[in-house]
Amino acid sequence: MLLSIFFIFSFLFSSSNALDFCVADLSAPQGPAGYSCKKPEAVTTDDFVFSGLGAAGNTSNLIKAAVTPAFSAQVPGVNGLGISIARLDLAVGGVVPMHTHPGGSEILVVIQGSICAGFISSANKVYFKSLKKGDIMVFPQGLLHFQINAGKTQALAFASFSSPSPGLQILDFALFGNNLPSDIIEETTFLDDAQVKKLKGVLGGTG
Amino acid sequence: MLLSIFFIFSFLFSSSNALDFCVADLSAPQGPAGYSCKKPEAVTTDDFVFSGLGAAGNTSNLIKAAVTPAFSAQVPGVNGLGISIARLDLAVGGVVPMHTHPGGSEILVVIQGSICAGFISSANKVYFKSLKKGDIMVFPQGLLHFQINAGKTQALAFASFSSPSPGLQILDFALFGNNLPSDIIEETTFLDDAQVKKLKGVLGGTG
Amino acid sequence: MLLSIFFIFSFLFSSSNALDFCVADLSAPQGPAGYSCKKPEAVTTDDFVFSGLGAAGNTSNLIKAAVTPAFSAQVPGVNGLGISIARLDLAVGGVVPMHTHPGGSEILVVIQGSICAGFISSANKVYFKSLKKGDIMVFPQGLLHFQINAGKTQALAFASFSSPSPGLQILDFALFGNNLPSDIIEETTFLDDAQVKKLKGVLGGTG
Amino acid sequence: MLLSIFFIFSFLFSSSNALDFCVADLSAPQGPAGYSCKKPEAVTTDDFVFSGLGAAGNTSNLIKAAVTPAFSAQVPGVNGLGISIARLDLAVGGVVPMHTHPGGSEILVVIQGSICAGFISSANKVYFKSLKKGDIMVFPQGLLHFQINAGKTQALAFASFSSPSPGLQILDFALFGNNLPSDIIEETTFLDDAQVKKLKGVLGGTG
Amino acid sequence: MLLSIFFIFSFLFSSSNALDFCVADLSAPQGPAGYSCKKPEAVTTDDFVFSGLGAAGNTSNLIKAAVTPAFSAQVPGVNGLGISIARLDLAVGGVVPMHTHPGGSEILVVIQGSICAGFISSANKVYFKSLKKGDIMVFPQGLLHFQINAGKTQALAFASFSSPSPGLQILDFALFGNNLPSDIIEETTFLDDAQVKKLKGVLGGTG
Amino acid sequence: MLLSIFFIFSFLFSSSNALDFCVADLSAPQGPAGYSCKKPEAVTTDDFVFSGLGAAGNTSNLIKAAVTPAFSAQVPGVNGLGISIARLDLAVGGVVPMHTHPGGSEILVVIQGSICAGFISSANKVYFKSLKKGDIMVFPQGLLHFQINAGKTQALAFASFSSPSPGLQILDFALFGNNLPSDIIEETTFLDDAQVKKLKGVLGGTG
Repeated sequence: MLLSIFFIFSFLFSSSNALDFCVADLSAPQGPAGYSCKKPEAVTTDDFVFSGLGAAGNTSNLIKAAVTPAFSAQVPGVNGLGISIARLDLAVGGVVPMHTHPGGSEILVVIQGSICAGFISSANKVYFKSLKKGDIMVFPQGLLHFQINAGKTQALAFASFSSPSPGLQILDFALFGNNLPSDIIEETTFLDDAQVKKLKGVLGGTG
Repeated sequence: MLLSIFFIFSFLFSSSNALDFCVADLSAPQGPAGYSCKKPEAVTTDDFVFSGLGAAGNTSNLIKAAVTPAFSAQVPGVNGLGISIARLDLAVGGVVPMHTHPGGSEILVVIQGSICAGFISSANKVYFKSLKKGDIMVFPQGLLHFQINAGKTQALAFASFSSPSPGLQILDFALFGNNLPSDIIEETTFLDDAQVKKLKGVLGGTG
Repeated sequence: MLLSIFFIFSFLFSSSNALDFCVADLSAPQGPAGYSCKKPEAVTTDDFVFSGLGAAGNTSNLIKAAVTPAFSAQVPGVNGLGISIARLDLAVGGVVPMHTHPGGSEILVVIQGSICAGFISSANKVYFKSLKKGDIMVFPQGLLHFQINAGKTQALAFASFSSPSPGLQILDFALFGNNLPSDIIEETTFLDDAQVKKLKGVLGGTG
Repeated sequence: MLLSIFFIFSFLFSSSNALDFCVADLSAPQGPAGYSCKKPEAVTTDDFVFSGLGAAGNTSNLIKAAVTPAFSAQVPGVNGLGISIARLDLAVGGVVPMHTHPGGSEILVVIQGSICAGFISSANKVYFKSLKKGDIMVFPQGLLHFQINAGKTQALAFASFSSPSPGLQILDFALFGNNLPSDIIEETTFLDDAQVKKLKGVLGGTG
Repeated sequence: MLLSIFFIFSFLFSSSNALDFCVADLSAPQGPAGYSCKKPEAVTTDDFVFSGLGAAGNTSNLIKAAVTPAFSAQVPGVNGLGISIARLDLAVGGVVPMHTHPGGSEILVVIQGSICAGFISSANKVYFKSLKKGDIMVFPQGLLHFQINAGKTQALAFASFSSPSPGLQILDFALFGNNLPSDIIEETTFLDDAQVKKLKGVLGGTG
Repeated sequence: MLLSIFFIFSFLFSSSNALDFCVADLSAPQGPAGYSCKKPEAVTTDDFVFSGLGAAGNTSNLIKAAVTPAFSAQVPGVNGLGISIARLDLAVGGVVPMHTHPGGSEILVVIQGSICAGFISSANKVYFKSLKKGDIMVFPQGLLHFQINAGKTQALAFASFSSPSPGLQILDFALFGNNLPSDIIEETTFLDDAQVKKLKGVLGGTG
């Protein structure tokens, strides 16, 4: 009896509200607010859980760094919720080059090692500090920032974002890793032609 | 002539803006911001009107209460507009058990009878009062709240929400009406095993 | 012991979050998001409750209508919550003239009597219907709409808004109740000079 | 080598974030937040560029005015970005009649000639001024406003909006250009029957 | 020379935009969108950095758990940015009791040990899983959820939130740790009187 | 009589809604949503109008460009409205160097001359085009973009933004115009030491 009323009570409401979450249907159309929602009956616990951040990323590369994201594509449950996370591994000498997230703010928490992190404001003031284990730092949306392993051991951190799709624009790659013509780069950055061509060579840019 | 210019004038604009409303197409994919929109030419007055709140809900049940919603599923015109409404009938002795709306704030207006209503803040302060005909009370988003018929006659109220899909999480049903294991409930609520099992029995919970 | 931990636990959090509500301090500066918040310790149940909608407004006037609002000024608890409400009384022959709410959508629920209500879309399509007791109608944000007592008895309705400050722009008063020069009105509305001056006379407009 | 790491680095992120823009797929379903997004690989520069505002609109009509919009339908790249633009041409004697944009605020910048522009607030206060070349004026969301050629030469202006779909409700067309019954118009605007019928005649209204 | 132009260029802009961040002035009035901003010249790197999550919280208490927040009060730089973080320590047998965050979604990342975590949806479906080191889980806004140390060692996790002030409503404390009258609790939760009084005794509730 | 009712009617509402605009009080505290509002009675037409974009900015400088903003500081009426505008003058050979607006999207409309404009996406794809008089281009929020005079005459454009405080981060100035240490710049951008020091010299950077 009580049961039945609760079922009715709850049914009336739940039939009208699939939106305490909107688990991404990665195969359906995406809109400005995110992916379309999976049908509620297809949603499982695994849509909200991700184990891919448990292992260190591969830092055997020139920047000696690896970023492993847990965004909508990896954790469909974050779609529409205004939050996501990524794992950051920095080998000794590792660096996350100057970059922005056009669509979200970030909080970094250092789990292991020491990381020198900083950002530059619209007013061109620099805010940077050497962070040790347990320290956090916040990077406001859209501003240039960086992280450098500041110690003599592997460093590990997690970066949370205020969006399920914060975006990532790495400065060097944006400038030198595509077909943006060298003369435009030089006119708009005041970099020397030799410098531009050198980095285009390294990063695969053409034009 | 004037006519023709107006038609042109208006056509240019209206061809680019179907969004002073987005009437829900309940059969199309849903996203984080709500349902897809019906084509404008298919929209009628009845998409914005609902007569289902005119009759009292059935309160012949253990909680002696009935909630009748007018959300996107019932009034497709509210989709995307940040508002919805529901009718609340409370027989003598009726109660809307402790619950939250995860996705919206609520204003209750008492139309008939007397209702004791209250909510509890994040700071664990209790705000409650006996409301009479014509009184309103606001319940901030996501906080536990309740309504009890405080009089000796049938009570009627309307609850407006700041979302077309405010959600409803009824505490007892969330704890005791599903397969959440008893030991987890007991560890996370400090309720006694007997109490948990008794309510699981009533509400159909398993595990 | 358990008590003490909970106090600590909760203290840590609550010390950092006064924002499950922001009760308006009507004497402090207002910003784009609403009024400043009262200090939590000054907040009482009465900030969330309002009894001023219990009595009929005075409809002894030319439009035979009265609107009684419950916005931030009357119910400081709605500040920042995205919702508010107003009472609408319509005597026989009463009318709420053509108007818009620039800052919010509206749901009307008819409590007593019969009301002819409608709105006009950006595409200039008219949506109107005679509503009876218990019927609801939604009016999307910013669109011209109206309500007319459609019956032979007093009518009563409640209007909920998707904002604590939806605004109200009554067409006649905007055109004829201020110092907007008659020639500008005529050029921008195509109304005749006699018509404009007649209504300016009635509504107190100058210029 | 550096290249490869950057590619990996960037790939991980970009695979999860198609949302630094959401170019409208005009053929797909639309939701409350805008149109569905084109697949990133189908997006081209031309989705962000529009040449249709380069030529004057045709002002050979009774209001001697033309508005040419660049909204999602013309510039799919604005979808979801909270901005759009339109060109306004006013011949000598031209006028943009009293209107509102239910879904966005506007900034007008005068490029050529002189324009008398104004708006009326919810508090029925009138704000208007004669603007000359280079002047700007802002019109808050949802409020009645107008623009009149105030000079003896053709005038040109651009109007930017805080939404890719601001909407446009022209007062005269909303009242007199559809099937809203004359008696309802008269009851809700206090206009005389003759005036209503005259303008219905001009603007093609029925009923 | 280049310098001077840049200074001018940048000055014009920066004089108009203090809002790529709004570091909380904890002594100034708070509004619905957060705290007032410190003057830009008073902002330092330490407004964006916090070291208080580096040490384990004190878990010598009945729930064997400690939550250490980094919200606006601790890290003024998060104000207005839509993100915050907290540290969670769980001794063996530790538990974060059933609770909600009315104002934000959460992502938990397990740094050490094993944690059984779960939430319950509006549709009363339970989503829970035993998480090991490196696993993440997302908890949508406003829904009941919990975390339990599932292993035989101390557990450590970080919880990120989609708001600088997510709020925290612990179920037991909301029900039994204040002056909410026992009869109201019993009517709205169906708990037995003895159970209610027992937990009121433990948690310091009165009435 | 009619007058009196309208006054009452309107008074009730307007007393509760000062928010169809929130003209910036530049001397009062600012919050995450913008400046505090001027008292309504102090607001004048001039708060919504600005004449400072009527004259060309001074382009007698190395980049041969001038940007003149109309943000909250210049036009207090845009505060809280989600829109602003700026004038862009480019002498022959002029360039707006690579930059981002962390807090808003932009639409550029070319009024005179020819401008080569472009942006780079998170996916490192370049979108650029030579724009002629009357052409518009949209630049999504937070992405690197630039404008170059592409012709042999002075160029003039207006840039509208989806925020009253879009921010401006000029790449060269952010990297080379402050005290960010050269070794950090080099590690995070892969630029050569000589290049960094050369540009630091030009732009006044230290460290």
